Amino acid sequence: MDAAERRLDGEEPHVRYATVRIDGVPRAAIEEGERLRLLDAGDVGELLRRGAADVAEIGEIATADAEYLAPVTTPGKVICLGLNYLAHLQEIYGEAEVPPYPALFAKYADTLTGPTADVPIPPEDVAATVDWEVELVVVVGREIHRASPDEARAAIAGYTVANDVSFRDWQNRTGQWLQGKAWDATTPLGPVVVTPDEADGEAGLAIRCEVNGVEKQSANTGDLFYGPSRALAYISTFTTLRPGDLVLTGTPGGVGMPTGERILLRDGDVVVSRIDGIGELRNTIKAEAH
Amino acid sequence: MDAAERRLDGEEPHVRYATVRIDGVPRAAIEEGERLRLLDAGDVGELLRRGAADVAEIGEIATADAEYLAPVTTPGKVICLGLNYLAHLQEIYGEAEVPPYPALFAKYADTLTGPTADVPIPPEDVAATVDWEVELVVVVGREIHRASPDEARAAIAGYTVANDVSFRDWQNRTGQWLQGKAWDATTPLGPVVVTPDEADGEAGLAIRCEVNGVEKQSANTGDLFYGPSRALAYISTFTTLRPGDLVLTGTPGGVGMPTGERILLRDGDVVVSRIDGIGELRNTIKAEAH
Repeated sequence: MDAAERRLDGEEPHVRYATVRIDGVPRAAIEEGERLRLLDAGDVGELLRRGAADVAEIGEIATADAEYLAPVTTPGKVICLGLNYLAHLQEIYGEAEVPPYPALFAKYADTLTGPTADVPIPPEDVAATVDWEVELVVVVGREIHRASPDEARAAIAGYTVANDVSFRDWQNRTGQWLQGKAWDATTPLGPVVVTPDEADGEAGLAIRCEVNGVEKQSANTGDLFYGPSRALAYISTFTTLRPGDLVLTGTPGGVGMPTGERILLRDGDVVVSRIDGIGELRNTIKAEAH
Repeated sequence: MDAAERRLDGEEPHVRYATVRIDGVPRAAIEEGERLRLLDAGDVGELLRRGAADVAEIGEIATADAEYLAPVTTPGKVICLGLNYLAHLQEIYGEAEVPPYPALFAKYADTLTGPTADVPIPPEDVAATVDWEVELVVVVGREIHRASPDEARAAIAGYTVANDVSFRDWQNRTGQWLQGKAWDATTPLGPVVVTPDEADGEAGLAIRCEVNGVEKQSANTGDLFYGPSRALAYISTFTTLRPGDLVLTGTPGGVGMPTGERILLRDGDVVVSRIDGIGELRNTIKAEAH
């Protein structure tokens, strides 16, 4: 039985979903080894909203021929947790206590970009201190409101990888981080959404970030204060989560800011963000002309 | 020449746009006195995205027969400024200096509700301190990125009213306000979007909030630190603003929090939020059952 049959039979799916561009058109797809089975949906978000059983297969291509996009291109909500690993909390604030509540902030659909896309940064007089933040992302598969952690766990469609590239000078202009976190096309997402049976972000997956081949961050998603189910349950207290919504769970220790460098990421730097069992993002920083 | 003809001729439009529910279906409309000219668009956001000239008129009803909804029901972005009037800055922080940068945070489309809708609040053990915040809202009419204030001014489709109803206990659980600002269906918006020639939020409009008939807030939008054009220009530095996007410009002095009351808004309280030249929101607080 192949993955799609298992999926339709309601058994454990073990599926890796992607969104790829074919002849200029974005398509959801199922990745199986070196092949992609193309689906009649514009992205994984649409696939989740419509339900996989209602989406036809429309062809097949080799992964080598595909341009991978952000798996979800138009989420209704992107909600991010901050300060959710001990080592990161310590490097930023010197604190070693588990915070009683998760810090939450937003990004927009426009903030997202593809797993191999260049990440644009403006001239240094506009924003200089651009930092890396590899993160585990939870993709919501089912509508939940005031869910328990168990109900939230059952609503997780899968996991993917993001780098919450952060503009520290703008982030710290005021107490509210949004303006340092929502620069257009600066949060790479992907390369695939992997179902929880295939890669369990809750139990723990190795997570890493490298800049120009040098390891900067290395941790395990099992060390999150607010793991995926608790995070979704907490958020669902005040807002409904729906299929295709994204929850970025926070970054581990090893970001650039504590080094005090005025300039962190520069034109041409290559940032690799990896979670074992899911895959990696590989993005080049691209300075915009004045 | 009537409003629609002026609109199509590209002259100063003096239009009041609304979104109303007709036979269960949301429709954009133009309000003229006590009549509504219905348009073939689902809300004012869709109207702005498609361009008013491409949207057909499909009928007419009396305003008395209409249920007004949030004029924009599915904005791509809702961006909010905080601490943008001197009196509010003083009542919260005791400071009297103009902050160099605007504090920005987000809401979601799900956060919005209609101008006469009940505003749901949860049982007191979930969230107790629910506060009022009347605000001028800028509705974006044209895509802008890295716009100057003059370019931003030209991109303003119109102004409307919101109440950024805030859950103070959640807002202050961490340094990030989002979780106190994004409770589903708690930000009433409307009743109409008025073009800038008709009501100039930049030049200054009287803005007020009453709770159970008692005036709590009274100010003028001309006193904003970051007025509409500067706010849009600033935001457009990091993210593209598009037709239908909403910018809430911040609340004046007179919110409930500084009184120190543990419970502010209660079941049955009536909150009236008014901006002269635009109109008023009238919302009843409705406690959810346990």
